[in-house]
Amino acid sequence: MISSNPERLQRAIGYTFKDDSLLHLALTHRSAGGVHNERLEFLGDAVLSWVIADELYHRFPDVSEGDLSPMRSTLVKGKTLAELARSFELGEYIKLGPGELKSGGFRRESILADAVEAIIGAVYLDSGNDSAKEMLLRWYKDRLNTIEPGLSQKDPKTRLQEILQSRKQALPDYQVVEIKGEAHNQQFTVSCSVEGLEKPIIGISTSRRKAEQVAAELVLERLV
Amino acid sequence: MISSNPERLQRAIGYTFKDDSLLHLALTHRSAGGVHNERLEFLGDAVLSWVIADELYHRFPDVSEGDLSPMRSTLVKGKTLAELARSFELGEYIKLGPGELKSGGFRRESILADAVEAIIGAVYLDSGNDSAKEMLLRWYKDRLNTIEPGLSQKDPKTRLQEILQSRKQALPDYQVVEIKGEAHNQQFTVSCSVEGLEKPIIGISTSRRKAEQVAAELVLERLV
Repeated sequence: MISSNPERLQRAIGYTFKDDSLLHLALTHRSAGGVHNERLEFLGDAVLSWVIADELYHRFPDVSEGDLSPMRSTLVKGKTLAELARSFELGEYIKLGPGELKSGGFRRESILADAVEAIIGAVYLDSGNDSAKEMLLRWYKDRLNTIEPGLSQKDPKTRLQEILQSRKQALPDYQVVEIKGEAHNQQFTVSCSVEGLEKPIIGISTSRRKAEQVAAELVLERLV
Repeated sequence: MISSNPERLQRAIGYTFKDDSLLHLALTHRSAGGVHNERLEFLGDAVLSWVIADELYHRFPDVSEGDLSPMRSTLVKGKTLAELARSFELGEYIKLGPGELKSGGFRRESILADAVEAIIGAVYLDSGNDSAKEMLLRWYKDRLNTIEPGLSQKDPKTRLQEILQSRKQALPDYQVVEIKGEAHNQQFTVSCSVEGLEKPIIGISTSRRKAEQVAAELVLERLV
């Protein structure tokens, strides 16, 4: 599973290590045994939070702390880091133990997100604050250009509606597709259709309202 | 209430501002109306976490992430920041609204802790990473020299016992002083006596075990 071409990964992340062993360590999951990437992850998490806080502070001079904090959370949360990992095809490079390998750990969101933080820590050790900051601002360029104060705290349906309105598109169309199970234990399947998406996106949950939110969140992931 | 001598505060924190307005902003609580210190607090919190993570990472090369994280939490938590604030006599300089002034807000832990983070943010803006880091390492010198991996995650009774053992002192003596209330809603008062403390420390909670932990925590605050 481990790709033998770390140059490709370094091109993807936009950074070439002076000390290859740091990159190797950042890619070594605890399950592989021996020294692993968790200490680098600890360091990288702190560096990431600092760089993002600094950037948001300066980019949004009129935005209150109450809005800056959730914006930072959105940018540094595991889901976002896992998206970055996938864009680097990082799963192909992570060294896992046999158990995690078998169960497809290289696709697991938390393992991907942790490895991204470990890479940040490794770059920080390899060449300091400024290089790490520069790399992170490149990774986050689009997300920083599109993030909006106040949006991230709102629920997915509201955010989806606001984004479509700002793009002058039609509002999403939610339809209940299926209701299964007994009264106290029902499962609702809802579809959400949006202009520009080829087919409706399905959300499943224990209530109609929740299933709509799930579908809206999935649509947002494709749109943003 | 506001001291007219910011030089004294700057001597206490060990930093002289180029731009006095940053210090002024850092000391302005939201209740004072107008522009206040919460954005600086957001920035300072991130800078502090980064500096402490970086320092712990390098000082403790053999300590796992599982121990580093709680060590960092101990160092950056509100209680620790409020202790720093008190050592700077920061309460005398914080600008509060009339309501907070009346209710003694300048003594409130959260207001003190937030102002400390805001000062960190202000120093960071005033002269950058390196100055902020240098100042923080001075502030935290003793705490960094005494913090031990593994201690902070343990419960207060265990920590107290370990500290006393390491100092070759007698173990603490816990006594139930009072049990009040009906069977399903009892209140336990426990005393904890330790060599070197003038009088026993009292802990109160809903069970004997919890009251002992409360007392141990209070004893730890006096010892450490």
